[in-house]
Amino acid sequence: MGKKLYHGAAYYPELWDEKVIDEDIKMMKQTGINVVRMGEFAWSNMEPKEGQFDLSFFINVINKLYENGIETVMCTPTPTPPIWFTDGHPERMYVERDGRVMGHGSRQHACTNHSYFRERATLITEHIAQAVRSLPGVIGWQIDNEFKCHVSECMCAACKELWHQWLEERYGTVEQLNEAWGTQIWSEYYHSFEQVPQPGHAPFLHNSSLSTMYQLFSMEKIAEFCDEQASIIRKYSGAPITHNSSVMFSVDNEILFKNLDFASFDTYATIDNFPAYLINSDLWRNFKKGKDFWVMETSTSYAASLESYASPHPNGYLKAEAAAAYALGAEGFSYWLWRQQRAGCEQPHSSVISAWGKPTVGYANVLEVEKMRKEIEPIILATRPRQAELAITYSDRAKAFLKTESHRGLNHRALVTDIYEKVLSMGIHRDLIPEGASLEGYKVLLTPFIPYVSSEFLARAKQFVENGGVWIAGPLTGGRTESHTVHTDQALGELENTAGVEVLFTYPMDNSGTIGRAFDVSAPLGMWSSVFEFDQEKSVGMIEQGLSEGKSFINEHCLGAGKIVMLGSMPQGAEGALMLQKLVDHYSQEANLSLRTDVTKGTIVAPRQGDGYSVWFVINMDGNGGSVTLPMEGIDLQTNRKVSPGKLEIGKFEYRVIRINDKECFR
Amino acid sequence: MGKKLYHGAAYYPELWDEKVIDEDIKMMKQTGINVVRMGEFAWSNMEPKEGQFDLSFFINVINKLYENGIETVMCTPTPTPPIWFTDGHPERMYVERDGRVMGHGSRQHACTNHSYFRERATLITEHIAQAVRSLPGVIGWQIDNEFKCHVSECMCAACKELWHQWLEERYGTVEQLNEAWGTQIWSEYYHSFEQVPQPGHAPFLHNSSLSTMYQLFSMEKIAEFCDEQASIIRKYSGAPITHNSSVMFSVDNEILFKNLDFASFDTYATIDNFPAYLINSDLWRNFKKGKDFWVMETSTSYAASLESYASPHPNGYLKAEAAAAYALGAEGFSYWLWRQQRAGCEQPHSSVISAWGKPTVGYANVLEVEKMRKEIEPIILATRPRQAELAITYSDRAKAFLKTESHRGLNHRALVTDIYEKVLSMGIHRDLIPEGASLEGYKVLLTPFIPYVSSEFLARAKQFVENGGVWIAGPLTGGRTESHTVHTDQALGELENTAGVEVLFTYPMDNSGTIGRAFDVSAPLGMWSSVFEFDQEKSVGMIEQGLSEGKSFINEHCLGAGKIVMLGSMPQGAEGALMLQKLVDHYSQEANLSLRTDVTKGTIVAPRQGDGYSVWFVINMDGNGGSVTLPMEGIDLQTNRKVSPGKLEIGKFEYRVIRINDKECFR
Amino acid sequence: MGKKLYHGAAYYPELWDEKVIDEDIKMMKQTGINVVRMGEFAWSNMEPKEGQFDLSFFINVINKLYENGIETVMCTPTPTPPIWFTDGHPERMYVERDGRVMGHGSRQHACTNHSYFRERATLITEHIAQAVRSLPGVIGWQIDNEFKCHVSECMCAACKELWHQWLEERYGTVEQLNEAWGTQIWSEYYHSFEQVPQPGHAPFLHNSSLSTMYQLFSMEKIAEFCDEQASIIRKYSGAPITHNSSVMFSVDNEILFKNLDFASFDTYATIDNFPAYLINSDLWRNFKKGKDFWVMETSTSYAASLESYASPHPNGYLKAEAAAAYALGAEGFSYWLWRQQRAGCEQPHSSVISAWGKPTVGYANVLEVEKMRKEIEPIILATRPRQAELAITYSDRAKAFLKTESHRGLNHRALVTDIYEKVLSMGIHRDLIPEGASLEGYKVLLTPFIPYVSSEFLARAKQFVENGGVWIAGPLTGGRTESHTVHTDQALGELENTAGVEVLFTYPMDNSGTIGRAFDVSAPLGMWSSVFEFDQEKSVGMIEQGLSEGKSFINEHCLGAGKIVMLGSMPQGAEGALMLQKLVDHYSQEANLSLRTDVTKGTIVAPRQGDGYSVWFVINMDGNGGSVTLPMEGIDLQTNRKVSPGKLEIGKFEYRVIRINDKECFR
Repeated sequence: MGKKLYHGAAYYPELWDEKVIDEDIKMMKQTGINVVRMGEFAWSNMEPKEGQFDLSFFINVINKLYENGIETVMCTPTPTPPIWFTDGHPERMYVERDGRVMGHGSRQHACTNHSYFRERATLITEHIAQAVRSLPGVIGWQIDNEFKCHVSECMCAACKELWHQWLEERYGTVEQLNEAWGTQIWSEYYHSFEQVPQPGHAPFLHNSSLSTMYQLFSMEKIAEFCDEQASIIRKYSGAPITHNSSVMFSVDNEILFKNLDFASFDTYATIDNFPAYLINSDLWRNFKKGKDFWVMETSTSYAASLESYASPHPNGYLKAEAAAAYALGAEGFSYWLWRQQRAGCEQPHSSVISAWGKPTVGYANVLEVEKMRKEIEPIILATRPRQAELAITYSDRAKAFLKTESHRGLNHRALVTDIYEKVLSMGIHRDLIPEGASLEGYKVLLTPFIPYVSSEFLARAKQFVENGGVWIAGPLTGGRTESHTVHTDQALGELENTAGVEVLFTYPMDNSGTIGRAFDVSAPLGMWSSVFEFDQEKSVGMIEQGLSEGKSFINEHCLGAGKIVMLGSMPQGAEGALMLQKLVDHYSQEANLSLRTDVTKGTIVAPRQGDGYSVWFVINMDGNGGSVTLPMEGIDLQTNRKVSPGKLEIGKFEYRVIRINDKECFR
Repeated sequence: MGKKLYHGAAYYPELWDEKVIDEDIKMMKQTGINVVRMGEFAWSNMEPKEGQFDLSFFINVINKLYENGIETVMCTPTPTPPIWFTDGHPERMYVERDGRVMGHGSRQHACTNHSYFRERATLITEHIAQAVRSLPGVIGWQIDNEFKCHVSECMCAACKELWHQWLEERYGTVEQLNEAWGTQIWSEYYHSFEQVPQPGHAPFLHNSSLSTMYQLFSMEKIAEFCDEQASIIRKYSGAPITHNSSVMFSVDNEILFKNLDFASFDTYATIDNFPAYLINSDLWRNFKKGKDFWVMETSTSYAASLESYASPHPNGYLKAEAAAAYALGAEGFSYWLWRQQRAGCEQPHSSVISAWGKPTVGYANVLEVEKMRKEIEPIILATRPRQAELAITYSDRAKAFLKTESHRGLNHRALVTDIYEKVLSMGIHRDLIPEGASLEGYKVLLTPFIPYVSSEFLARAKQFVENGGVWIAGPLTGGRTESHTVHTDQALGELENTAGVEVLFTYPMDNSGTIGRAFDVSAPLGMWSSVFEFDQEKSVGMIEQGLSEGKSFINEHCLGAGKIVMLGSMPQGAEGALMLQKLVDHYSQEANLSLRTDVTKGTIVAPRQGDGYSVWFVINMDGNGGSVTLPMEGIDLQTNRKVSPGKLEIGKFEYRVIRINDKECFR
Repeated sequence: MGKKLYHGAAYYPELWDEKVIDEDIKMMKQTGINVVRMGEFAWSNMEPKEGQFDLSFFINVINKLYENGIETVMCTPTPTPPIWFTDGHPERMYVERDGRVMGHGSRQHACTNHSYFRERATLITEHIAQAVRSLPGVIGWQIDNEFKCHVSECMCAACKELWHQWLEERYGTVEQLNEAWGTQIWSEYYHSFEQVPQPGHAPFLHNSSLSTMYQLFSMEKIAEFCDEQASIIRKYSGAPITHNSSVMFSVDNEILFKNLDFASFDTYATIDNFPAYLINSDLWRNFKKGKDFWVMETSTSYAASLESYASPHPNGYLKAEAAAAYALGAEGFSYWLWRQQRAGCEQPHSSVISAWGKPTVGYANVLEVEKMRKEIEPIILATRPRQAELAITYSDRAKAFLKTESHRGLNHRALVTDIYEKVLSMGIHRDLIPEGASLEGYKVLLTPFIPYVSSEFLARAKQFVENGGVWIAGPLTGGRTESHTVHTDQALGELENTAGVEVLFTYPMDNSGTIGRAFDVSAPLGMWSSVFEFDQEKSVGMIEQGLSEGKSFINEHCLGAGKIVMLGSMPQGAEGALMLQKLVDHYSQEANLSLRTDVTKGTIVAPRQGDGYSVWFVINMDGNGGSVTLPMEGIDLQTNRKVSPGKLEIGKFEYRVIRINDKECFR
C-alpha cells in the first residue's frame, strides 16, 4: 500500500464455483478493479467443522487474483460463527435489552465478549494469518466486518460478569461508583459490583450513568476484541490492518482505530444527502492522521435488501463520489459488491456485475471511476490533503451520552451532519477530528453536542485558545460530568469558568416563543439551552423575546491571544441556519481563515498540498454544476493548459484538477 | 346441496338457553334463513372434560332446525381447544417468532402441528361425525375456522422437528439444501437437517430461502391437517366438506381446497373497497372449478370487535353484495352472525338480530336479500357462471415470496386487488385462477407479482400462447427461483428465453425519475424493475427518461399463434393506471375478447350461461347507479318484459337480470 | 393541617450532603416554602441492608426543617425496594403482559402483591412511623408514590394466585363465573378458578370480562396495599394520610382514597391544555368531600426526563395555577422538586433551584406564588369552596371498561376532559364526582362514558331525578353489564326502562354519514351509538340523515319532578361541540342553575362561601386576559375597594378576589 490508488470490490468467491471465479477475475481486469476484499463471512468455509481448518480455497483464489494483477485485503470471518458454534448454545449468543436471545442464520448473532467466542476467534484468525502470511497478493487486513451495525449492547450473562470487572477497574470501590452515579436516588444503591444490573427491561428509564457507562463498556470491549485480533495477525503478517466502520454503529471509532494501522469506512448515503457521504472522508482522514483511509464499502448504484431499497445513483454521481474520496485523502475506493448475490438477504443490492455475470446499471459508472482514477493517480500520489484550519470535534462518546439523554428524540449523527453541512456549504475546508486529536494548526474549533467535556480536553482547548484560536463551544456542550450526571458547582462545570460566562438558567427552549438575535439575524431558539447573564462586552447573541428576554445566548470571552465563544442554544429554522453560518463566518474572518473559497453550494473544493504548490480538486456533487473563483492563474492538470484567474465553471458531476503555485492562495 | 340458493347465518346455540334457541329458530324462519353454520368453537361443549364426549346438545339443535326447514353446515371445533388441553401445557401452544408462547382464552392458541393436538382433533371430529352422520339436517361440513387468521408460522419445538422432516423430504440431503439455499453465505452452512433453524429472532434478515420455505412448510402442514380432518369425516358422512378461508390468511388456498369438496370464503370488505369484496367470488369460483362456492361469512352491516369497527353498510348494499355473489357463482350467502354475542370480544360485531332478540340496523337489508334470493333462485339454478376469457393468476406461494422479500413494504393482497380493480372497471369479465388451473378457454392471461414461475407453469403458459393466447407477464414476475434465490443464468431464468427478451438491468425505479411511454401514455415507473434491450419489433414500452433512457420496459414476443408480453416495471400514479388499462385494452382487442361490456364504473355485469341463452346480472355496487349498453333485445327476467337494445339504466344498488338469446352477445 | 395554606416542594435530602441541606433550608425560608415532602424513594437510606433500619438521617432533617418553620409530609418509600430485595429474586418483580420481568434500577419494579414485598413494606413503614411519630414537624403522610404510574397489571405467579382467590370471593363458584363471563364462547370454559388465566399473550383479544375484571382486581389490590400501609401508620401517628394520584394511572381513585384522610394529586399539564390542569381540582375536591386537597406535585416550569421535555410555562402562569388550586379547594400547592437532581433520569426536570443551588427559570414565578398565597390565605381560610350545581360523574372503573373496549382508540381521560372543557368554558361552576358520591345539592348530573351503570347508582340517580334533578346520561353509557358483557333483555338494561326510551339499534356512527339535529344545530354523529324510536313528546334530537333517518338520538323523559335525558350518540366536530353546549345550556336553564357567570373563555370564576357572603376568585388562565360581569356591587379584597356591578376586566394571568354579600348572586 501507499504506492497507488486502489479501486476495489468486496468479493465472495466462496459462494461460486471455479468457472464463475475465473470469469470474475477476467471481468475485474477489464473493469479496472485492482483489489478485492475477501473472507469476512467465510468462517464455515475455512473451518467447516470445529477444529478442522482449511484455508486452501482462499490461498488459491488470492494467488489467482494476484497473478492477474489484483491484490487482496484479507478479512477475519468473526461476524458469522458457523453452526457448530451456535447450535445448541444459546449462552454464546447475543442477548437483547428485553432478554431475547439471537438465533443462527443472520450475522452478529454471537456475543463477542463470550470467552469461548474469543477462543475460537483467536484460533480462526491465527490459522488465516499463518496460511496467507507469505502470499504476495495480501496487501492488508480487515478485522471482522462493521462491528455493531445490527446490534448494540449485549445483555448476556458473560457480559454481566465482564461489566462488573470493568466497573471495578473504573471505580475501584462500589462506594465510589455509588457516589459518582448518585445511586441514593430511587434506592438504586449497590453494596457490591456484582449487584450492578445491566440496563435491561425496567418500568421507566435507567439511571443515566448506568445507561451511558454500559455503552462505553460495550464500545471498549469491542475495541479490545479488535486489538486482540490485530495482535494475532501481527505475529505473522506485516500488512496494515483496518476495520470498516461508520458513524452509525455502536462503536467508539477513536479507540477502535487507535491500535489499527489505517482507517476505513462504509457508506451508503444517497445523492440527496451527499454531505452525509463527504463527512466520512473529512472525519476518517483524522482517525489515523497522516495516513490515507479507505472507502471500504459503497454501492455502485443503490443499497438494498429483501425489505428495502434506496434510489439508484444518477449517472455521473459515482465518479464524483470517488473523486471526492481520493481528493480528500482516500487511498482505496471499494464497492460492495463485485457480483450480485444469488442467495441470502441482500440479493437486491447493487453490484458491479449481476448474479448472471453481466454489467449492472452501475457498471458504466464504475468504468468512469476507473478512468478518473488512472488520470488523477499521479497527482494524488504526489500530494497530501491539506490540513484544515477549521476543525469540528466528533465524539462517539458524546453519541452515547445523547443516546442516553436524547432530550426530544435528538440523533447525534443528524445533529453533527447538519453542522457539518453548514460549514461545507460555506466553502470552508474542514476537518472533523476525534476528541483526542491534536489542535495544532487549527484556527477555529467547533465542539457542538459534546455533553461531557473532559478536563484533559478542556486544558488542550484552553491552550489552543491562548495560542490564538477561536473555540466555539456548544450547543449542548459541557453540561454533564464524566459519569453523566449534572454538575453541582455550576451549570457547565469547569468549562463555565474557562469560558468566562455565568449561566443563569438551563431549560428547553423549543416552542417557548424564544427569539434570539445575533450577527444581525433574529431566529427562534430551541433545544436544551443555557442562558447567560448579559454582559455588554461579552454578549454577542441577545434574547429578544421569551422567558429570558434581555439575557444572552452567545457570549465571547478573550483568553490569551484567542477567544472562547459559548453558544448556549440552537437557532432554529432557515433563520437559525443563517445565524449559525454568520457566526462561523464572523469568527472564521476574525481567525483569518484562508482555506476557504466561494465555491457554489453543491460543489466542493478539496485542497491538496504538493511540494511547493497546491492542487485544487473542484468537484460537483449535486448534479447541478457550479463554479468557484480561482484567485490566481493555475494549471488544469487534466489538459495541462493554463487557467485564468476568476470564475471557474464546473459541469454536472464534473471534476477539475487545478494546480496553483502559491501555497496561500485561498482568500 | 346443489338444489337451491342458501341464505344462512353462523349460529352459536351453545351460548344460549333453550328459550332463546326456540325464539331464534322462529325468527330465522320469518327472516328466510334456510341454513346455519354451527359448532366451530364449541369443543368445550362437546368434550367438556378430556375424553367425555357429548354431542346430544347439537344433535337436538340440528334436528329442531331441520324440523323448521333450516339445514346445517356442521363444523369441527378445533380452533379452540378447551382448558383441559391447554392448562399447564405450554408445549402444546403456538409460539411466536420472538419466542412468546400463547395462552388460553382467545383462539388459534394451540399448535396445529403438535402430535397431541392432532390426536385430540382426530377424536373430537370422529365423535362429531359419528354423532351427526345420520341427521337429515346436516348438508355439509366446515373444517375448523379461518385457519391462520390470527397466527402465521408457529415456532414451537414440535414444529421444529416436523420442519426438519419436511426439509429432508424436499431436499433429500442437507448438501442439496445447502446448494439450493446458497448457505455458504454468512457461514449459515448446515451439516444436518437438525441444524436448520426456524426463522426466529436474529440481528438482521434471514436467508430468503429459509424464510420462504418455512412459510411453505407451514402452509402445507395446515392443509395436511385439513385433509386429515376431512378424511375422518368422510368415513361417516357423504356431505360435502369445505373450509372458510380468505386471501388474507397465511394459507395456500390452492392446496387447502384441493382435497375439499367445495370452496368458501369469509369477507368483511366495506363499500369503499367493493372490488376487494368481488375479487373473492372471481377467485373462489376457480378453486373448485365447476362447483359453486359459498360466502361463508360476511357482516350484515359492519365488522367490529372490542378494539375496532368498520363503518356500517349503506342501506341496499347488502342486497347488491348477495346478488353479485350468487350471480358470480355462489350457492350460499351466510352472515356472521345470527344473534349478537353477549360475551367474548366480538360483542360489537353486527348481526341479524341483537343479543336481546330484536332486529338490528342490518335486518331490513337481510330481508331485501331474502326477497332477491327467492326471485333469482330459478334463474341461477338454470344457468352457470360463464368462464371468463381473461384470467389473472393468483398465487398464495407468490404471497409468501413477497412476505419474505417485500422490497419496500409491498403487500401482495393490495397489489393483486389493484390489478383486479383495473380490469373490473374496464367492464371485462374475468377469472382469478390458481397457478395450477387449466388455461383452456382463456384468451388473455395476466401473471403479475409472481416472483417464482415454475417450469411446469411456464410450459403450460407457453402452450397457451402457442395456441393463440396473449400472456402478459409481470411486473415482478419470474426473477426468483423455486428456492427463492436469484437466477444465475439470466435475470428471469427460463422465462427470459421463452419471452424472447434480453434483460439488461434489474433495479428499483421508484423516485429515480424514470418515465416510460407506451400506448400513447407517459408515466413514472416504479418498483423493482427489469429493463429490456430496445428492439424495434418487440418493444412496445420505451423508457423516455431516467438511467435507462432509450431502453424498453414492455416487450412483446410472438410465439406460435399468440404473444408473450413482458411488463418489466410498474407504471405509477393516475397516468400509470391509464397505461396499464390501455395495455390490457390493447391486448384484449388483439385477442378478440368478447366477454366485455361498456358498463359504467361501480356497476358490474355478471354473465351466466343457460341452455342456448345468456343471462346478464347487472348490479350497481357503489350506490351511484350506472348503465350498460345492451347489444340486442333481451328479456327482463324480473318483469318478463322485453328490453330494447341500447342503454340500460341501473339504479342505486339495483340489480337487473336480462336474458339474451345470442350466446355471443358481447361486443 | 387545616390552619394555613401550604406552599411546598418535594425534597430529597438523602441525595445531598449536610452543607447543601443547610443551604437548602436557608433558601426555602427565603422563598416561602413552608412544607416539604420527603422520603418516598429513600428505602435504601432507611434500610440499607435487610433488617438494618436507621431513620436518624430523616429525623435529623425533619427537626432541622421544623426549627426553620418548615413542616414535613413524610412518605413511605415502597416504590423503590433496595437491591437486597430485588437482586437474584425475579419472582418478586413485576411481570409484563408479554412475560418480560422487570429488573432493578428504575421504580415500581417490584410486584406490590408479592407476600414478601408486603412483609418488607410493613416493616419499613412501621419503623418509619415509630421513628418520626413524635416529631412536631411531621404534619402528614404520603403512602408510596404515584401508584401504577409506570406499570399497570402485574402478571406474576403471586398475582395469579391472588387473582384466583379474588375471583372466588367475587363469584363464589366457577360455574357462576362461567355464566357471568359467557365462557362457553370460544371454549374458554373453566372447571376451577385455578384454570382462569391472567390476560397475557394470546393470538387475539381476550374475553372482555377477563380483561376488565383483571383490571379491577389490580386496582383493588393496590388500594388494599395502601390501606394496609395506612393502618400501620395509624398505630403510631395521628397525622393525616394521603397518596399522590392522578387520573392517568391504573388505579381506582375512588376506592384508593376511601380510607385515606385527604386526597392529593400530581399534575404536569401545560398551559395549552389548562382545562386538564383544572379538572383535577374539580375532581379531587370530591374524593374526600368537605376536606381540602393538595396539589402534591407540579412543575415550576416544565416536566422533563432524559428522553422528553414539555415547554416551559410562560411567566405568570404558575401563579394562576396556584391561585386556581387554592380557590378551588387546595390546602397545599407543592412543586416537584426543590433542587434539580444531579443523577438518575430526571435531571432535566424543572425545579425551584438548580443542582448548583441557584434560582431556576421558574424561581421568580415561585416568588409570585408565595406573594399571592400570603395575600389570599386569610380569605381562603375564612371560606369554603361552593358545591357546584352541575356534577359530572367520573369513574376509573369506566376507564377500565374503556381500556378493554376502546372501540376505535377511545381514551377515557381525553373523552372526559373534553366534556369537562365544554362545561368549563360555559362559565358553569362544576364538580366532578366519583360514582359513589352523594347527589345531594346538585341540579344537573352528567354521566358520559360510563359503560356499566350499577343498580345502586341507577337507584340513586333515579331518586335524584324524582327530586327534581336533570340527569343527562350518555354517550356510551349503560350498554354493558357488571361483568362487561352486553345486556340480553334490552340494549341498555335497567337504564333503558328508567330512561323511558326504546333503543332500536346500536351501531358505530363514525363516517356513516349520519347527521343529527338538536337545539337548532345539525352535526355529524359518531362513536358507538344508540338509536331511539322517535317519540313526538320525548325526542329532542332527531336523525336527519343516515341509516336511521327519522329516528331519535336524544330523548328526554320526565320522572317525578325531574328529567332523564338520554344522549345516544356523540356529536362531532365544531357543530357537535356547539350542540353539546346548547344541550347543557338548555337543561341548565331548565334546572335553574345559578352558579354560572358569563366569564370569557380562558378565565375562570371559582366561587367560595363565607359566612353570609360569597367570594369570587376570578383568574385568567390562558394569558390573554378576560372579563366577567359582576351582577352587583362587590368588594375587591386585594384593595378593599368597592367594585361596581358590570364588566370586570382581568389582565393576563391576573387574579381578582371579589366579595359579594348576596349568596345567590349568580345569574
